[in-house]
Amino acid sequence: MAEQGVTPQSEDFNAWYTDVVQRADLADYAPVRGSMIIKPYGYALWENIQAALDARFKATGHQNAYFPLFIPQSFMQKEAEHVEGFAPELAIVTHGGGKELEEPLVVRPTSETVIGHAFANWIQSYRDLPLLINQWANVVRWELRTRLFLRTMEFLWQEGHTAHATQAEAQAETMQMLDVYADFARDQAALPVIKGRKSDQERFAGADATYSIEAMMRNRWALQSGTSHNLGQNFAKAFDIKYLDENNELQFCWTTSWGLSTRMVGAIIMGHGDDQGLRLPPRLAPIQVVAVPIFRNDDQKSDVMEAITAAVQELQDAGIRVHLDNRENVNPGFKFNDWEMRGVPVRLEVGPKDVEKNSVALARRDVPGKEGKQFVDRPQMLSTVTGLLDSIHENMLREAAEFRDAHLHEAATFDEMVEILEAGDWALAPYDGSAEAEDKVQEATKATSRCFPLDQEPLPQGTACVITGRDAIGKAYFARAY
Amino acid sequence: MAEQGVTPQSEDFNAWYTDVVQRADLADYAPVRGSMIIKPYGYALWENIQAALDARFKATGHQNAYFPLFIPQSFMQKEAEHVEGFAPELAIVTHGGGKELEEPLVVRPTSETVIGHAFANWIQSYRDLPLLINQWANVVRWELRTRLFLRTMEFLWQEGHTAHATQAEAQAETMQMLDVYADFARDQAALPVIKGRKSDQERFAGADATYSIEAMMRNRWALQSGTSHNLGQNFAKAFDIKYLDENNELQFCWTTSWGLSTRMVGAIIMGHGDDQGLRLPPRLAPIQVVAVPIFRNDDQKSDVMEAITAAVQELQDAGIRVHLDNRENVNPGFKFNDWEMRGVPVRLEVGPKDVEKNSVALARRDVPGKEGKQFVDRPQMLSTVTGLLDSIHENMLREAAEFRDAHLHEAATFDEMVEILEAGDWALAPYDGSAEAEDKVQEATKATSRCFPLDQEPLPQGTACVITGRDAIGKAYFARAY
Repeated sequence: MAEQGVTPQSEDFNAWYTDVVQRADLADYAPVRGSMIIKPYGYALWENIQAALDARFKATGHQNAYFPLFIPQSFMQKEAEHVEGFAPELAIVTHGGGKELEEPLVVRPTSETVIGHAFANWIQSYRDLPLLINQWANVVRWELRTRLFLRTMEFLWQEGHTAHATQAEAQAETMQMLDVYADFARDQAALPVIKGRKSDQERFAGADATYSIEAMMRNRWALQSGTSHNLGQNFAKAFDIKYLDENNELQFCWTTSWGLSTRMVGAIIMGHGDDQGLRLPPRLAPIQVVAVPIFRNDDQKSDVMEAITAAVQELQDAGIRVHLDNRENVNPGFKFNDWEMRGVPVRLEVGPKDVEKNSVALARRDVPGKEGKQFVDRPQMLSTVTGLLDSIHENMLREAAEFRDAHLHEAATFDEMVEILEAGDWALAPYDGSAEAEDKVQEATKATSRCFPLDQEPLPQGTACVITGRDAIGKAYFARAY
Repeated sequence: MAEQGVTPQSEDFNAWYTDVVQRADLADYAPVRGSMIIKPYGYALWENIQAALDARFKATGHQNAYFPLFIPQSFMQKEAEHVEGFAPELAIVTHGGGKELEEPLVVRPTSETVIGHAFANWIQSYRDLPLLINQWANVVRWELRTRLFLRTMEFLWQEGHTAHATQAEAQAETMQMLDVYADFARDQAALPVIKGRKSDQERFAGADATYSIEAMMRNRWALQSGTSHNLGQNFAKAFDIKYLDENNELQFCWTTSWGLSTRMVGAIIMGHGDDQGLRLPPRLAPIQVVAVPIFRNDDQKSDVMEAITAAVQELQDAGIRVHLDNRENVNPGFKFNDWEMRGVPVRLEVGPKDVEKNSVALARRDVPGKEGKQFVDRPQMLSTVTGLLDSIHENMLREAAEFRDAHLHEAATFDEMVEILEAGDWALAPYDGSAEAEDKVQEATKATSRCFPLDQEPLPQGTACVITGRDAIGKAYFARAY
């Protein structure tokens, strides 16, 4: 089925990505340059991401709310770093209802300003704290070089915004939500991510500190897949978010924000996919099991369809997301390739022999060919499928972790660092955090600093940055990144 | 608790509405005029509306997708009626990324155009039909006179968009989704709505026919709460949505669209509320049961808190949305008023005597005072609460239906019609569907035509419109409307 094929990853990873996104029906280009249509199969994946994250947000005490799309332009200017960071990316509404507006409106690129304004109204006393809010929304950032899911002018995301009485509580919240993202990535998306702090250059415009989860894609590039910011009192001071403490004294709040977007769909595609197409982690896959009937004539058809319909019903009743592919204009071989391309974790086949033996065939997407296929007696189908879904998740997570670990290397000198990066891997090395050092690495290798991983021992006093020779502040990963 | 009170409905219904929305923490004004912040309590209500509708959409074969916020201005102009209807309400982006755009972008007021464009790409043959898509999104319509939830510049909604091979299928879809809305209103929101067809004046810009559900508010005004449009081939022709039929001939598709918005929150507030505040239908209420502990000293407190915590846990485990109000800075009386204001269907009280007798008190929001309060033995709590939630739903639905039916009257003459409308009720009368007739009624009474209800017998040949004397096309409701 040549037309179903995709460019091999080894030949051109970016072409592979574009092929997969389009052939698997995840997304489509939209008439306005840089914007995207998320097609049903891609949106169902996003809905499953949303449901899993939303449950985690609620379990940690957050409530959803909704704030306006349009922000007065003057709001953007209240926090100096923030406006500097976002001004070049803004879409501006100048006309409404047939008239030119007195003050132009900004289409939100992120909502710290408008939510900060609301928090200032809502928070009076320490009793109102912490205030823990999340919103699911679309945001717009004018981008010149866009790529479906990874970087689009408009994207969907959640943005959490919280206010606290103390710096320590804000920091604890920032780290808690970073953990929520990392746990979600591991337990739902089967992606082992590295948690770390960004360099000052990569920090969110207006934050004291930005933390991220970084995932390694199959081409070894890094993808920042979620961020959590400790905003200190920067927005509290810009928007006058104050509370009366227990001694009846006015204090500025400490705020945080954290976000994860449809970019995560890109992380899943590029973190797991292979030359046959997508490989979806079972806990997020819109379709966990696809059922394909196999028959040659009408006699066989009626028996097979009866058996497979009952099997599908049993899986569905058990809460498994199952789809019966009963298309009549394509043959089973086409269907096998099609669903492999779409990354469905388990394929269930029922043919005349299976009906006879009261069995079914189960093929796992993560193990190709005969090795991944088994025949099970019909009574064992449900328990086998349930076990397979967990086993596929574990196997995908293990594969991704092994792949990642095989491509992480420590560098003791700048030359070693360059060698590792030129080979396409990630380098971990003592780094002074400066822009100057980062620029030097980027010029030599196109790689940038990804993060100072949280999981590291403090450096011995006086450890030198491998790039500048000045005092390092910690070890950081460097890699090519999206 | 004077500060918690709201303006009585009978004194000023609009002031009552504004008071309730703000005091019950449903929504807040935003810095940009006409836009709104949906606060957590209001948003949780919207989430429950979404979940109930989304399940119904999926059960009827629809899939969710997401289309862009920005639409090229030229797209709006492709369907003549559509541009005429929406042009005055558009917000326009003229600048992006620091530059003036070559073609300004429209912030979607609705998505027929951009989705029509995508459908034209996606649909090739009859095998691709029907195409059944829904999107949850924000839309912007420039409004001068806004009111929280009812009419805001930006609002949240779902918009369904479908394409079909035949006119009959498109009409069946249009009616099916109208039924979905009406069933949802009745079974989830406890609102009995009238299904009907809009007059040509009130038809969606670009539709062949628009159907709506109309709900009666407690001030007897009508609120259009959901609409379903048969778009004929209007958008198919404007956007070239064609398919190859089974004879290999190119045909234009027949399309529909249908939407329900955060306006439904307004319908719930005004369809059920009373002078004590909100009354939320149990199946949508963010909090179905609020638990209030009652004690006078620390000894009592520990017993009461232990008992009430266990009771809350039992309800929660049974899937009931329950909240324990353990605030220490306000007394139980304040809490009772507060939760009454917020419309929580059931209040659970546990005091020292309840602990002694192993009982709890249950008060229902829909039946005020002692009559609505009962004491039940602790083992019967769960079954009593479950029964109460259903019973409150049924009672609210019955009350709303009785209220509505008491204020619907048939008019046989124009004078009768005016008399009914001036008294504030709804008039049902033979109507020729003309703008001229509608204008005459509006001038005399400020009322407009709401719909030709579907539930009516065909008129005898030659029945005269009570307004113009010309041939009526059916009986229509007239009423004051939001």
